[in-house]
Amino acid sequence: MMNLDGPKLQPPSPALLAAMLDVLGPKGFTTDHDIMQPWLTDWRGKYHGRAAAMLSTATTEEVAAVVRLAGDAGVALVPQGGNSGMVGGATPDASGAQLLMSLRRMNTIRSIDQGAQSVVAEAGVVLQVLHEQVEAQGLRFPLTLGGKGSATVGGLVSTNAGGTQVLRHGTMRALVEGIEAVLPDGAIFDGLAALKKDNRGYDLKHLLCGAEGTLGIITAARLRLVPAIAARITGWFGVASPESALALLRRLDSALGPELEGFEIIPQSCVDAVLAHIPGTRAPLPDHCGWHALVELAAISPDRADVLLDLATAAQSDGLVTDMVLAKSDAESNAWWRIRDSISEAERASGPAIQHDVSVPVDVMPHFIASNPARLNAAFPGARAISFGHLGDGNIHHHIQPPLGADGAAWIAEHGEAVSELVYRHVIELGGSLSAEHGIGQMKRDLLHRLSDPARIAMLRGVKTGLDPSNIMNPGKLVP
Amino acid sequence: MMNLDGPKLQPPSPALLAAMLDVLGPKGFTTDHDIMQPWLTDWRGKYHGRAAAMLSTATTEEVAAVVRLAGDAGVALVPQGGNSGMVGGATPDASGAQLLMSLRRMNTIRSIDQGAQSVVAEAGVVLQVLHEQVEAQGLRFPLTLGGKGSATVGGLVSTNAGGTQVLRHGTMRALVEGIEAVLPDGAIFDGLAALKKDNRGYDLKHLLCGAEGTLGIITAARLRLVPAIAARITGWFGVASPESALALLRRLDSALGPELEGFEIIPQSCVDAVLAHIPGTRAPLPDHCGWHALVELAAISPDRADVLLDLATAAQSDGLVTDMVLAKSDAESNAWWRIRDSISEAERASGPAIQHDVSVPVDVMPHFIASNPARLNAAFPGARAISFGHLGDGNIHHHIQPPLGADGAAWIAEHGEAVSELVYRHVIELGGSLSAEHGIGQMKRDLLHRLSDPARIAMLRGVKTGLDPSNIMNPGKLVP
Repeated sequence: MMNLDGPKLQPPSPALLAAMLDVLGPKGFTTDHDIMQPWLTDWRGKYHGRAAAMLSTATTEEVAAVVRLAGDAGVALVPQGGNSGMVGGATPDASGAQLLMSLRRMNTIRSIDQGAQSVVAEAGVVLQVLHEQVEAQGLRFPLTLGGKGSATVGGLVSTNAGGTQVLRHGTMRALVEGIEAVLPDGAIFDGLAALKKDNRGYDLKHLLCGAEGTLGIITAARLRLVPAIAARITGWFGVASPESALALLRRLDSALGPELEGFEIIPQSCVDAVLAHIPGTRAPLPDHCGWHALVELAAISPDRADVLLDLATAAQSDGLVTDMVLAKSDAESNAWWRIRDSISEAERASGPAIQHDVSVPVDVMPHFIASNPARLNAAFPGARAISFGHLGDGNIHHHIQPPLGADGAAWIAEHGEAVSELVYRHVIELGGSLSAEHGIGQMKRDLLHRLSDPARIAMLRGVKTGLDPSNIMNPGKLVP
Repeated sequence: MMNLDGPKLQPPSPALLAAMLDVLGPKGFTTDHDIMQPWLTDWRGKYHGRAAAMLSTATTEEVAAVVRLAGDAGVALVPQGGNSGMVGGATPDASGAQLLMSLRRMNTIRSIDQGAQSVVAEAGVVLQVLHEQVEAQGLRFPLTLGGKGSATVGGLVSTNAGGTQVLRHGTMRALVEGIEAVLPDGAIFDGLAALKKDNRGYDLKHLLCGAEGTLGIITAARLRLVPAIAARITGWFGVASPESALALLRRLDSALGPELEGFEIIPQSCVDAVLAHIPGTRAPLPDHCGWHALVELAAISPDRADVLLDLATAAQSDGLVTDMVLAKSDAESNAWWRIRDSISEAERASGPAIQHDVSVPVDVMPHFIASNPARLNAAFPGARAISFGHLGDGNIHHHIQPPLGADGAAWIAEHGEAVSELVYRHVIELGGSLSAEHGIGQMKRDLLHRLSDPARIAMLRGVKTGLDPSNIMNPGKLVP
């Protein structure tokens, strides 16, 4: 296998920086430390980098020119969108030799096509702005997540982002119809035409989606839109266990099919933590349940609530559901989703935890949730596992809290790495993934190397060396 | 860019052949010309090759052992499934130095999972067998095509096959949940676990799907299943033009959504040819129409026929539809699909034609169908263009017949290449693809090179050289 360090990367020379300033103009180029500073640390404050300059391109042609200059000089580029990633994928290294490349100025929505239900958005368009612009045309972009106020189209595509609507609409990959990108040699790849069928060899769209900027820089994407929601129906169900929740999910999925958009599970302890720490929250159900399922339909009409109710009543008779309530208003729906979305915040209020974003086959998830705590406690007595999230996607956030009474920070410093290793090895044993939706970035690169099938690593390296032989594209990220 | 000829490929030595016989046993190895012969010519008789031996592996481990031996010796492998491809992708070259590798003995359905609605099938499972096996479990594999009696899972995945249900369920790519493959270094890549979310870097499943055996040999796939059809509803509509057909499609799609499975268009001339040449066929509508639309729903209940009828009646009032009829039985549905499926056969009965499998954005297709004949006739007076097929996918089969009265074979020999070039250039001008569903293989490799954006070719070459640096995997196919 080729050496991924490749030709030794260089810091940019003064002449190269001058040439870039010449291409980008003063609005697109800075070496000012105070201006760069907010973008050199990831939003969670875990990764800190330096950069020789920050480039803020305004057009695809400018991106191409900059990439050509960097390639000729053997200088590394680190593309960045909203800087809201979870794995340090957009933070440069500490050398100060890399160039930070912001796509945020490229924030034009080039077109919205009502007939074909698609939008062409540049890399720097913020997700929330995209939502609003297409809603104004009676359409909907059906992917959303907590960071929607800062996450950009380029970053969402580059990380194949997930969120809470994946059950119905898939991850970002399933919503990308076309991509425009600048490749490591500076060529512009124009793949924006919306072709439903195209068998001209390797699928370059799928290759760039989720590549975390290591194969090229995405400058624009054509994204699939769906009709606006006709009727939103939200249900909150008490269930005895993740097994019961899965059985309920299967019934709803089979009866409601494409109307079922969201199915999240939440343990009682998380609900308790939210009610204790987040002001203004109220329990949807009067009594404690082992687990809760938050279900959302994008239904064809409001009367489909009756169908959901009938299904849930039958599930109650069969012992799958212990209690239930449907939201009576959009405000109530929003209040319930606020409970779901506040779990991490409530958890932080009660102390530190070790977080894992993992997936296993959907059917196996109840087994993982049930069996991981015992395995964990055998090795780390008193450690507490909390699992919540996207059961329908086989993807949960699996957080481990220190034993009650322990000094949390000290315990994590001592055991954190070994705890994570135990969790990831369990996931892999079950055929799962150590990164379900957050990606690899710099955070999980060594982990991926250590715990992956060598065939997978060899393929990642082969693609990377084949497409970016000089390794100028976000080096040090993703590919071990 | 690296030289794709790579290290010079060798013919297999007697020692290598002996080693392969040792691995595969006499049932898995032959150099007998009569046994190999049927597999050395593609089914349409256009491509003829030779092979030093035919290897018929029985297990994934045997595939891995053979690939390692071939890799060490620098000998080329040509994987083959049902030998029903359209572009010569599974036919070895004429040198006699390549090894033909049949996957047909690997024909086990490893598992059918009712809960998760998926099947794991080995590469050699024939599509029709797959249909029958999953139907016996009350499920359905929703991809079908003319060659279903010979096409295999491995070939269908490797060519990202299409067919008549793509409108609803996508091409093969959208139905593949996981892949097991042997990579060019002989490593087994086990990606069969059904993970709905997995962000461990470049998507290797999407990379192997449609790679035509040039990046590795697919040995098994996990495929998505759907519930059996509750109610099949077939409609035949007379429409004035492709524009009207597209407007009808948009209305049906918006009102029926996921129930709409098929939408094919057929010009009157094709219907006439079928009625004239195919015994036992009858016109669905009493009068001539400019165009016909064959529509199929996989509906949630039989009474959805009323909804289709209401929509069509409204479309008739609005002048989009000139006449219509719904099938009264499964037999009638089948008879209508037989008309659609017999177009090529009827066309052959009336003489030779030059065939093109092309796609453009769906909205642009009516313009292409309307404008290509004029462009064609300006250059080749009297040439007749026939367009039919998957309007909803933006994919039609565009056949050019010689002028009436001309010696067809001679005319095609003289003008065929230039005619195709004109068609493909028009398609590309409209942002389309010169291969919608049939792939590239050896037939369109030079064409792809000549008519593609250099950035696309560079990416194809980069991936190929990165993953198969010795170029032993189906060399000479796909990658220019």
